Amino acid sequence: MTVSSLVQLRLVWCCWTLPRWQMNGHKRPLAMWTSATAQWTLKQKKPAELYRIPVSRPPILSGTSLLGKGALSTTSISPKEVMLTSERYGVQRLPFSHVSDSDLAFFEHLIPGRVITDPDELRPFNVDWLQSVRGCSKMLLRPRTAAEVSEILRYCNKRKLAVNPQGGNTGLVGGSVPVFDEIIISTALMNQVISFNNVSGILVCQAGCILENLNQYLEELDFIMPLDLGAKGSCHIGGNVATNAGGLRLLRYGSLRGTVLGLEVVLADGSILNCLASLRKDNTGYDLKQLFIGSEGTLGVITAVSILCPRKPKSVNLVFLGCQSFSQVLGTFTTCKGMLGEILSAYEFMDDKCMKLVENHLKLSKPVTGSPFYILIETSGSNSAHDEEKLTNFLEHVMASGLVTDGTVATEDKKIKMLWSLRERITEALTHDGCVYKYDLSLPVERLYDLVIDTRARLGKTAKNVVGYGHLGDGNLHLNITAESYSHSLLNAIEPFVYEWTAQYNGSISAEHGLGFKKKHYIQYSKPQEAVLLMQQVKAMLDPKGILNPYKTLPASS
Amino acid sequence: MTVSSLVQLRLVWCCWTLPRWQMNGHKRPLAMWTSATAQWTLKQKKPAELYRIPVSRPPILSGTSLLGKGALSTTSISPKEVMLTSERYGVQRLPFSHVSDSDLAFFEHLIPGRVITDPDELRPFNVDWLQSVRGCSKMLLRPRTAAEVSEILRYCNKRKLAVNPQGGNTGLVGGSVPVFDEIIISTALMNQVISFNNVSGILVCQAGCILENLNQYLEELDFIMPLDLGAKGSCHIGGNVATNAGGLRLLRYGSLRGTVLGLEVVLADGSILNCLASLRKDNTGYDLKQLFIGSEGTLGVITAVSILCPRKPKSVNLVFLGCQSFSQVLGTFTTCKGMLGEILSAYEFMDDKCMKLVENHLKLSKPVTGSPFYILIETSGSNSAHDEEKLTNFLEHVMASGLVTDGTVATEDKKIKMLWSLRERITEALTHDGCVYKYDLSLPVERLYDLVIDTRARLGKTAKNVVGYGHLGDGNLHLNITAESYSHSLLNAIEPFVYEWTAQYNGSISAEHGLGFKKKHYIQYSKPQEAVLLMQQVKAMLDPKGILNPYKTLPASS
Repeated sequence: MTVSSLVQLRLVWCCWTLPRWQMNGHKRPLAMWTSATAQWTLKQKKPAELYRIPVSRPPILSGTSLLGKGALSTTSISPKEVMLTSERYGVQRLPFSHVSDSDLAFFEHLIPGRVITDPDELRPFNVDWLQSVRGCSKMLLRPRTAAEVSEILRYCNKRKLAVNPQGGNTGLVGGSVPVFDEIIISTALMNQVISFNNVSGILVCQAGCILENLNQYLEELDFIMPLDLGAKGSCHIGGNVATNAGGLRLLRYGSLRGTVLGLEVVLADGSILNCLASLRKDNTGYDLKQLFIGSEGTLGVITAVSILCPRKPKSVNLVFLGCQSFSQVLGTFTTCKGMLGEILSAYEFMDDKCMKLVENHLKLSKPVTGSPFYILIETSGSNSAHDEEKLTNFLEHVMASGLVTDGTVATEDKKIKMLWSLRERITEALTHDGCVYKYDLSLPVERLYDLVIDTRARLGKTAKNVVGYGHLGDGNLHLNITAESYSHSLLNAIEPFVYEWTAQYNGSISAEHGLGFKKKHYIQYSKPQEAVLLMQQVKAMLDPKGILNPYKTLPASS
Repeated sequence: MTVSSLVQLRLVWCCWTLPRWQMNGHKRPLAMWTSATAQWTLKQKKPAELYRIPVSRPPILSGTSLLGKGALSTTSISPKEVMLTSERYGVQRLPFSHVSDSDLAFFEHLIPGRVITDPDELRPFNVDWLQSVRGCSKMLLRPRTAAEVSEILRYCNKRKLAVNPQGGNTGLVGGSVPVFDEIIISTALMNQVISFNNVSGILVCQAGCILENLNQYLEELDFIMPLDLGAKGSCHIGGNVATNAGGLRLLRYGSLRGTVLGLEVVLADGSILNCLASLRKDNTGYDLKQLFIGSEGTLGVITAVSILCPRKPKSVNLVFLGCQSFSQVLGTFTTCKGMLGEILSAYEFMDDKCMKLVENHLKLSKPVTGSPFYILIETSGSNSAHDEEKLTNFLEHVMASGLVTDGTVATEDKKIKMLWSLRERITEALTHDGCVYKYDLSLPVERLYDLVIDTRARLGKTAKNVVGYGHLGDGNLHLNITAESYSHSLLNAIEPFVYEWTAQYNGSISAEHGLGFKKKHYIQYSKPQEAVLLMQQVKAMLDPKGILNPYKTLPASS
């Protein structure tokens, strides 16, 4: 292949879209198509909006301008606010101590100017992003170092004061906010990069670094973070690790259990566990850090993370395709695993109903219409000509075989972000549709969509919308049900039906969101009793007074 | 590019070797080169010898032909055998019960015909593959199911009988054989594949399946195991998981902490922990299986494994290169990460001294000579033309820039195996060189070889050979020192020097071999005291009587 033919192929390919291939059978430049159909309404929006967590969520404090001081307030919360978790769910407060004025004095002395007690400032930290649960914490602490976290926990443990470790507060199962008056320990000021080795690709940073900031930092050094998710603009890496976040790149770079190489964790008694190794391999004793990955702040507070980062791919392509059936979605997946192989980096699916919500509530337009299912396939590789050739072969094959009926390709960064926002902003669109009942399930891929169909049939008109989308490449379905308002009877129609359905196929009732507050009582649908008992033993061993993120993850020991 | 040009490129490339590029600057077919130089002496050998664990190791029982019965024997062991561990290391037996005739009767009733007590049959199971440690177990049990393992452990726990779980007995740190008279629980008869899903690539199998057998089974289904190591012909997947084996594919497919999706484990009290999920994502509670990965049989006996297997690559290439300095080895690594990207699947290095041992003791010839360092680079991809083009570009670049002085490429399966055997059989060659002092270290790559140089300088003529090789792509050095015979003074010159050197650079004193019996007292060089204490708490929680693989992994609690 000569250089000129390579360039020519690339130019043709980059602009290639697939508008109704069967209907006109020829290639048309993307630019022409987009201007002709005027469907790229996103282009008028600020790029930041297209791939960030929605701007309507409670703002995250940064710097020190919003710090509050003073005696503990007892101002009552406005009745218009989210219902208190304790009231909605009828939870009983455990016998922890209440924060006293002498406690306040201790913390003010320890981290002067970084103790927040003003009710207005505290409000966003007491409510989750979904506005579905609300605690009534009267104190938020903003340590800067593991040593400060250590002093805080040592004191709280001695005083039997419950704490709620909080990162970006983007969790979806009520794990990141207090249930009652737990002291919130925010990681927001622990936001320093400690080191980066550009030979090994190992990043060491504090837990409060925002995922998107880390990714930007790395991109300048020709690397990327091994995980990516819709909440990247707000979520903290410590929170990602504490919840074992999955997201969009898991298919390619694997889970955090493999990419996190080390952690620094402060235990309930204040001792600092320094397992912040920067080594790809280390078989010296038990891998303690794994206990804290995914334990949702119930076993310790993660203060720093060492993580293996891949090279920034030289070539990234994103394909948006339409399919006429879910079996075609599956067939396309099997085909693309074979034909795209090592360059496949994401395989996401969305049903037509969730695409309609994105369109209606966020005014985003999809480039392909008229299909009951849509797919996003991302490739990332080191040689753009090779990647494009693989992708072209794949697209020709799936179009010719009838697996796919329609599609478009994006290679430019801006267009890639626009296409991704159609997938990433579904969560946001759902919140505009009313009260959302969220389920995040792992299932055998071949059964994945049956649950959406069965749920839709079961609920009939009692639900406003029943939609399915998710990380098909990882067997991960996000099933979401919306209604005008919260209703116990609708909830009872959904649960335990969804959990029983999932357990029947040996699925997981929480693929990536964790159990938090909302799902902890359903753990037995995915874990045997022996496992739950052992988890409770682990919890009792590491946090005998139970001060760390109480009411979360595990049901109370019987 | 037309089809004909593609084929032409492929043909030229497949036969390409790089004999002294600087000297003659032209491409010569591999076949011509190999016959002309007659260096491929391996070709006359049986292929099986080229990539299996050496035939001289103790045979692994299979079937039931070697089963022994009868009363417990007290026959003394021949004085010519390996020195007893208890004598060489002066270990005190812990107060476990001794196996009685009534215990024998119980096990004979539980698993009739699968209790071995004959001293001759027991001998190979009491000695490690390196012939460096020896226990004096008088009983080996061969359960077939987790239920049988459960009954065995329930009984042993009640009777306070210590046990030694044993897979293929290929461990290198004395973890896989008894120290005293622990009952050996062999996984050899738990060798059934339970299921394989060819959409998800998830394999579920019993712990006693031999790694190579699993790989062969998968290859027929167009998949491979995500790990590969020299001992593949003997080692069991359960043992691989229990020791968190690394090996040759870790660079590409990541560690077992990411690829193992589920485990079935029998705990010390006999309870069966079924966490045998076949899901890529599962965030329901703490990830208990991680406790057992790498815990070397001290926390439970792994009886079944669920593991994510990648597609069999359509194209595999192996390159053997010579470098004039270690900094060129590093430069070649950085270059190949960038230029080979997603198809890079292994990057191994060997110094000239270990290549000489392979040549002298095993009569294997390397295809390239005259360099102080050699590299093996493997690529695995889905498109052979693309892979070959990437590899050609890379090789031209490293030759032109002087990073590499010599090399050869293999694309045929048989030749690939021959080249791999040069690397995989180093361990075997070392055992023929005398008494071997083995060190398996994780270090920052840029420091990796300095330790070999410093050790060589320190030991001078007191050592026969000091060699370095390993998984450079993972920062993993295998430092090996040979001497005519075991000597305390030589050991004292090596230790703690090697551990202190490693700790100085925040390395790990065991990258992939584990701690077993031989390294447990050195854990503090890589783990802080808080971590060791917590590990001891975990051990006490899961195995309060300490019956599981005692004297291993952790130093005794103080």
